[in-house]
This record gives sequence, structure tokens and C-alpha cells, in this order.
Amino acid sequence: MSGKDRLIYLPLGGSGEVGMNAYVYGYGRPGKERLILVDLGVTFPDMDSTPGVDLIFPDMSWLEANVDRLEAIFITHAHEDHVGALGHLWPKLKAPVFCRDFTARIARHKMEDQGQDANQVTTVAPMPEAVEAGPFTVQFMPVSHSLPEASGLIIDTPAGRIVHTGDFKMDMAPGVGEPFDPEMMGAIGDSGVKALVCDSTNVFNTHPGRSESSLPEALGELIANAKGMVVATTFASNVARLRTLAQVAQAQGRSICLLGRAMQRMTKTATDAGLLRDMPPTVSVEQARDIPRENLMLIVTGSQGERRAASAQLARGVYMGLSMKPGDMFLFSSMTIPGNERGVINIINAYSEMEVDVVSGNPAYHVSGHANRPDLEQMHDLMRPAMLIPMHGEHRMLREHTKVALAKGLTAAVVTNGTMVDLSGDAPRVVEHVETGRVYLDGTRLVGAMDGVIRDRIRMAIGGHVLVTLIIDEGGQPLGDAWAEIMGLSKTGRGGRDLIDTMEEELATFLQRADRKLMANDDKLNEAMRRVVRQVTMEELGKKPEVTVVISRLSDD
Amino acid sequence: MSGKDRLIYLPLGGSGEVGMNAYVYGYGRPGKERLILVDLGVTFPDMDSTPGVDLIFPDMSWLEANVDRLEAIFITHAHEDHVGALGHLWPKLKAPVFCRDFTARIARHKMEDQGQDANQVTTVAPMPEAVEAGPFTVQFMPVSHSLPEASGLIIDTPAGRIVHTGDFKMDMAPGVGEPFDPEMMGAIGDSGVKALVCDSTNVFNTHPGRSESSLPEALGELIANAKGMVVATTFASNVARLRTLAQVAQAQGRSICLLGRAMQRMTKTATDAGLLRDMPPTVSVEQARDIPRENLMLIVTGSQGERRAASAQLARGVYMGLSMKPGDMFLFSSMTIPGNERGVINIINAYSEMEVDVVSGNPAYHVSGHANRPDLEQMHDLMRPAMLIPMHGEHRMLREHTKVALAKGLTAAVVTNGTMVDLSGDAPRVVEHVETGRVYLDGTRLVGAMDGVIRDRIRMAIGGHVLVTLIIDEGGQPLGDAWAEIMGLSKTGRGGRDLIDTMEEELATFLQRADRKLMANDDKLNEAMRRVVRQVTMEELGKKPEVTVVISRLSDD
Repeated sequence: MSGKDRLIYLPLGGSGEVGMNAYVYGYGRPGKERLILVDLGVTFPDMDSTPGVDLIFPDMSWLEANVDRLEAIFITHAHEDHVGALGHLWPKLKAPVFCRDFTARIARHKMEDQGQDANQVTTVAPMPEAVEAGPFTVQFMPVSHSLPEASGLIIDTPAGRIVHTGDFKMDMAPGVGEPFDPEMMGAIGDSGVKALVCDSTNVFNTHPGRSESSLPEALGELIANAKGMVVATTFASNVARLRTLAQVAQAQGRSICLLGRAMQRMTKTATDAGLLRDMPPTVSVEQARDIPRENLMLIVTGSQGERRAASAQLARGVYMGLSMKPGDMFLFSSMTIPGNERGVINIINAYSEMEVDVVSGNPAYHVSGHANRPDLEQMHDLMRPAMLIPMHGEHRMLREHTKVALAKGLTAAVVTNGTMVDLSGDAPRVVEHVETGRVYLDGTRLVGAMDGVIRDRIRMAIGGHVLVTLIIDEGGQPLGDAWAEIMGLSKTGRGGRDLIDTMEEELATFLQRADRKLMANDDKLNEAMRRVVRQVTMEELGKKPEVTVVISRLSDD
Repeated sequence: MSGKDRLIYLPLGGSGEVGMNAYVYGYGRPGKERLILVDLGVTFPDMDSTPGVDLIFPDMSWLEANVDRLEAIFITHAHEDHVGALGHLWPKLKAPVFCRDFTARIARHKMEDQGQDANQVTTVAPMPEAVEAGPFTVQFMPVSHSLPEASGLIIDTPAGRIVHTGDFKMDMAPGVGEPFDPEMMGAIGDSGVKALVCDSTNVFNTHPGRSESSLPEALGELIANAKGMVVATTFASNVARLRTLAQVAQAQGRSICLLGRAMQRMTKTATDAGLLRDMPPTVSVEQARDIPRENLMLIVTGSQGERRAASAQLARGVYMGLSMKPGDMFLFSSMTIPGNERGVINIINAYSEMEVDVVSGNPAYHVSGHANRPDLEQMHDLMRPAMLIPMHGEHRMLREHTKVALAKGLTAAVVTNGTMVDLSGDAPRVVEHVETGRVYLDGTRLVGAMDGVIRDRIRMAIGGHVLVTLIIDEGGQPLGDAWAEIMGLSKTGRGGRDLIDTMEEELATFLQRADRKLMANDDKLNEAMRRVVRQVTMEELGKKPEVTVVISRLSDD
């Protein structure tokens, strides 16, 4: 490598998944670039790969190791997958945080929730206000999304201008947040864009995106025809939808009650910021209980079927004194994120059993917050960048977005998490691969994805767990028999035999034959006893459980 | 209840889910009805609710308790969700099994796989051949589906004729199996149908179903344009699709290789039965390795993203000496069952990383084997039953199908698993609720859904597992300290403290203070130590794990 200054781009999260966005830009001598971080989001766990985990963060080890080079953190908007990790990971980064007002309010909550200093978050007005961060000058470029003040970033560097879109859609009337402004975008394009780093999540949708303002008419008809209580769910952070739903309900003479902490916080924050002036008033859950059901609409959390959210609680029975009745309507004003289908369908079936009418998966009642393929192409055309780098998306989305761009004659490349590219030249050039991955918030602790804790849980979930205890006396001989305990395994084996009895018999037989040398070696004895147990479980149950052997040696002292 | 003979219907599985079909019909004095069972299928586990489970069966306890009244078992067709539990549950039912030839061949495999007598399965020709089973006369009514010899049942009883559709679609050219025959169906309708018990899985699809014969043209174009190897996946048991894919590949000059045991068994069985005469020849995997990729099409198992199936293995690298290369194509000629999306998407992303082009979710390359709403309505019109009972479907599907029927002026009712209805009168009348549920095949053992084994596994998966061992000496005092071991928990707590050390210290403090009475009571001591451990984990990790305490008491003898 020469020592010439270069402009680098390094996604640490979000380029290989939908979620946990975290993008590093750097400028300077190779290995000494001054850095900024864009977004610090979370993604959500599932039973398949991350049972018991509370949240998933991008592994920021590389940035932590280079934290002395980090100038600032910029947050594009207040969604969990962009700001959710801020409070948890900030202590390891300790750089000033910049965002627009609404985002800053949420970001400060995130800091405070984790006992961090909310004053580290600085509010910035949209362009032309600019933040100087080392060699970077950064402006917030308003885009339309599904909450207030979503922004792309205009990042000026000595090597040229980068436009980082953040999440966006092309909505001329989004209801909440600034409308998409093609003139402003075109002017930015005119100014010369070296690299467009662009949202990719909806690249497989070939229809032009629809506006939030297309929803009220259909929603109004639906709710006008509802006989009982109406309960609607959407993402708690989809402030635009909360407003749309509430306005439609109000127009139909219904009082509105928000259920779910996340939803209440989002709405309150937007109201406090003066960004929801046309949001109808809401009633408390106590008031809601006294309102005739045909005059009531609940807006609740749990659009993804989350077990603890209001939608699932109502599907199981009474929640906060409210319950569903035959003839009520439940509306999913949302899409189901792949992987969440089973939870959502379970809720729909539970409502079906209650004779509640469920409306779900109907595009008349939901629009996405992301740009579809034709919208992405329009963005390319407005920005006319020297190169396009698809970001935020699974690999298949990044690849498809790249194909779309290449087909139009643009320079484009798939750049996945951990790939550092040099943007200084005419095309992105890979210069380094850094270690990345995922870190789990498990309870209150951070656990690495690769350190075996979750793997052990998955193994216990699949195979069950057997514990064996053995006491060895001062003379090196077993004191009594080995004991076995099981968890997550059938109590009886073949022919109805008691599994623990069979294990203990086999262990006794084994110990009788074990020689002094084996009895003296904890590791080998442990391994041999594990083998005995796994033979028994294989024979009796056809299962290979996890086995923990505890050997207690009595000593003379 | 009077003592008059009655006709009853009792679903034990399939009416509350897609899968594990098992329907009982009975005729006779209340409580003494002679019974037949229609279908004995499985459903599939998932990590969310059934980690480590191999298969899920309907709980047949009620039928087992009344097995002396069971005259016969009829299997409508050879799909796993209709025949998959036969070998496992037959030993508890021991009734003769009747099916058509192809189904019987698969049913015999199922019996033999579990060491049961294949001769219990009797082959029956389609209508007008009939089986007498107590008060029932049963004929197999050919329907179109996605494999050979799918059948509905015409069940004649002293109280009238029932038509049980089994799984079906309206396909005039299904390629494999009999075309749908509206004339024959109309004639059955003319004969007078008391109850139509009807497939409901696709009731939410409002478009008329498409024919298997609509696929070859689009598939041919797709494969003609493929540059490298083509790999296609579909359900192993979708014999019609295997044939369609193979014929299209052959027409494009490609050799065909089937990968996956289930697929090979299905094809061989259909071929042996003389039902796949126009299936192109296939090559072995050894031969396939020597064929130029542009002349090869693999048809593989794993359309649902199953980890061990060929599609997932190829996504991870070399499988049986074959591997994917950039420019190859992978085709999902299938739909994704809700809940399986994440696994399928993981495979698509893995192929994306290999620069393999994936075609998925495109209706041009897949048709369903089930009747959509307009087709169901046509079936109602052909059969003109006195009453309609939706079967095979989640609750929301049964309810929707009932609504569709009621809207047309039909008599219809939702009848879910465990609900016994009397069909003797003008409308289905609920007469009893029986215990039903699910039984899990876990390794080689059957485990009840409610007996806590799987619940314990889920708890360990979410919370981890702590084991504590304590030796108490002859005097009733702790011999040394209590020991702790952890599995599936972070090794360090707050401030990086060693979790096990902290637990053992807290346990030691607790034991020092414990009085003789507590030390003498195993249950109370166990509970108290569990509480200490959970306090530590809550404090240090914010987690509540499962805790197993093993107390070993040394005795004087």
C-alpha cells in the first residue's frame, strides 16, 4: 500500500441482513484513516439460532480496536435497527453522537436506558447545517420513510461526496416526516456524487412504492363497516401509520387507545417534538374500558406476533382489562417479517377461535417504508453517482441491487459486512477483510455469537441434558453409586424401563470394571462416563443429549 | 341421550392445523358406535415449540381407548400428513388398513420401517369396488392432487352418504394421477350426499387453481436460458412435479439426477406401480459428476430449507461430490410453508454468496395441489350436500370455509380436533368433546406434548441450565462446598466476575447460615439452593436459568 490518503467504506452490520445497521467511513493514510460511524442498530433473535437472546448487535470489535480514530457517530433515523444498540455499545466507542431532533430524543432515551450520558447526543438541523467530523463534513438530507425526520447523509470528503441514503421511500405525502423531494435530490445529483450508498431491502419488489396517503380511504371503509371493537397493529415505531390509523378511527367516531409501551413512547416523543400536531387525542386504557366497543379502536404493539406484546396477550384472553369478543375486528396494518409467520398465524388462529375477524396481508392497509426497485432506479437517476454501493439488505438483496445498477451501466459492487473497500478510485476496490459478526444481549450481559453459550443452549434444546454426579473417596474408589438426573428427556426408555435406573445401572457396571488409573484421572473418567450415558440414551431413546459429569473427590484433610 | 343409532364425525388431527390428518367416523348406539379411521398423518416440528422432536403425531388416546370398536383404517393418499404416522401408531390400533395401490405401497413401507406387518395393508381398486367395514361401505373416489391415486372416500352409512374429499384440486391434466372428473362428481352429487367433509387449506386463495400442465412451457423457457447446472427442488412426495421437471429437463437435453432418499423412494414406488411410464430415465450421482453442468439437472429434496436435505447441503458446499458454481441456477418449484421462511431464505442467501441465480416464489413454476376457493365452491355445487364440514386446515381456514358455505346457503359448521358431532340430523350437532392433542416422536420414543419434556428443553434453551452438587456428611453438615456447573450461560457476570465463583461463594454463605432443620430436609434445602442460584444469575446476568440441585448424603453404613 502506498501512503496516499484514501476514502474507505466498511459495513459492520446491515450489509448481509435486514437489521443492525452500522457503517464505517474513513479518510486518511491507509490504516490511519479518521473514521465516522453511521447508525448503530439491533436485530432481533429467534428460537432457531438465538434462543433466549434479548437483542442482537453488530460485533464492533474492529471499531473498538480503532476507537481513537473515531470522530463521531451519526444516526439516520430512530428505528431500532439504526439506533437500538446505541446505549449498549456507546460505552465502548465514546464518540459524540449527531442526529436530527426526533432521532436525538429517541437516541437520548436509548442512552439513558443503559445509564449513559444523554448529553453525548447533539441535535443537528437538516441541510444546509453541517457537522465537521475530522476530514468529513456531514449534512442530514431529509428523506421520506415511516417516522419523523428520517434522513440520508451527505458526506463530503476530500475524495468527493458520498450520499448515504439511510432507509427511504419515494413518498410525496408520507403524512409524517418530509415528503420525498426529487428536486432537492436532483440538485444533489447535479453537485456530483462519487458514491451512492443505497438502501436495498425492497429491491425484489418490482412495483413503484405506494404512498402512506393511499391508505386512509380503504382503511376508512374497512372501519366504517366494522360492527364491534377494532384493534389494529403496526410497528410501534411506524409513527406515520399510528397517525393514519388514529385519524381514520377518529373520522369514524371512534376513540383511540394505544396499548404497548414502545408505541406510547414513540407517540409521546413525536408529540413532544411538535411533529404530531394533527394526531387525534387518545384515551387511557382505564377510559377505554368504559367506551362502547363500537366506538373504540385500540392500536396495539405486536404486529410480528411477539409473545409478550399486546396483540398476543389479547389473543390469549384479557389484557389490561380489555378482551376481544365475537364480531370484533383485528387488523394487521403491517407486513410480516420473514421468520415471524408462525407467531403471526398463531395469533390469527387464536382470534379465529374467538370469532374475531382478522384482516391481514392485505396491501390496501399497509405500505412499506422502503423504496421498491423502480424507486431505487429513480434514486440512481437523480443522484447519477460515479459508483453505487447497495447497503441494508440480505446478500440476495445486495446482489440484486448490484445487478439492477450494472444493467443500467452504473459501476456497482456487493460489499458485505467486514469488507473494507477503497472508494478513492473509479470503482470500489476491496482492501481488507475485518472480523465482524454478531454480539448477543443475553439478559444484561453481552455474549459473543461464537463463544459457545448459545450453541450449548441449542444443543440442550435438541438433545436434553443429563447430569451425572459421582463421589470418589479418599482411597480413590467410588463412594456409593453414580447418580443421574435428566432434564428434557423422556423418563422411560424401551419397554417402559426407567431411564435413570438404566443409566445408573450401566454406570455402576462401568465403575466396577474401571481400573485405578482411570479412576484417578478426572478428565478420562468424565469422558468415559459421558460415553456410557450417551450409549444408554442412544439405545433407550435414540437421542444424544448433552452430558455434564461432576466428580467430587473426598480428601483426607 | 336416547339409544337411537347415530352417525358421528370426530377429527383427531388435521382440523386445527395443516398436517397430521386423522378423522374418525362412527355409526351405532351412542357410545357404542362402530368406528373407522380416515388417514393417520404426521406434522413437522420446529425450534419454537418442539425443539429436537423428530415428528408430531395426533394424540390417538381416545381411539386407543375405544380400539375394540375400530373396524378399519382408510388412507386417502400417500403424503406424509396422511400416512406418515401409520407405522408408528398402528400397533396401538391394530385394525386392517385399506388404500389404493400406490398408497398401499407407501403404507407398507411405513409399516415395515417400524417393524410392523406390511400384510395388514390391503389394496383396493377405485370405485365401484367397495370395502365393507361394520356399518360402513367405503369406496375410493379418484381425485386430482400432486401424486398418483389420490382419493376421496365415499362412505355409505345407514344414515346416508358422506363424501370425504381428502386433499384434492381441480386439475383436468394433473400429469400424474387421475384428472378431476366433474361428471363423476356430479353423478355422486345426484346420488344424494348427506355430508361433504372437505379440504380447506387453500380457502384463502381467491383465484381458480392452475393445472400442473400449465408449468412445462414456462419451465422450459427458464431452463433453456440457463447457462450452467440447474438444480430444482420440490416436495419429495410431489410425484407430479418430479415428472414435470424431469420431462422439461429432458426436452432441454439435460440428464436428470435425483438427490435425496425420500425423492428416490417416491419415484421408485411410482415406477414400480407402473404409474410413471413417461418419466425420463435418471442418472446416478456418480454418473452425474461426469456430465457437463450445462447438460445436467439435479432434482433435490429440501424445498422447505430443511438443514439436512440436499438443497441445504449444496448451499453449504460439496454434497455427494457435487457443488454449485457461479452461473448455476437453483429453482424452488414449490411454495414455502409458513414458518419455514427463515430456513429457505438462509439457503437463498448462501447461494447468492456463491453467485448462483435463485428462482423462488414465482407462481409460473409452481402450482398448488389443493383446491382454491372457487374450486371449493365448484365442489360444493357438484356435491350439493345437506351439510358441509370443512376439514384439513388451521382454524382460520375452517372458519373461512364455513363462512363461504354459509354465504351460499349451505348448512356448515366448524368442527375442530376433539369435537364429536352427530351428523344424523339436518345439521351437525356437537355431542362430546374428547381429549386430543399431539404426541411427539423424540428419537425413538413417544413423548406427550403436555408431559413437560419439551417444555424443559425450551426453558433450558431460553435460560440455560445450572447444576449444583452438595455432599452432606454423616453428621448432617456440608462436606466441603457446594459446586456449581453451568451450561448455556455466560461465564462472567457483572464487572467480569466469574459466574461460578460468585455462585459458589453465595452458596457457601447460605450454607453457613442454614440451620440443622433445613439441612435435614432435602426438598427444602434443594429449593433454597435453587433460589440462591437464581438470585445470583438474576443479579449477575439478568437471567433465570433452570437449576438442578443434587444433594448426596453420606451414610454411616
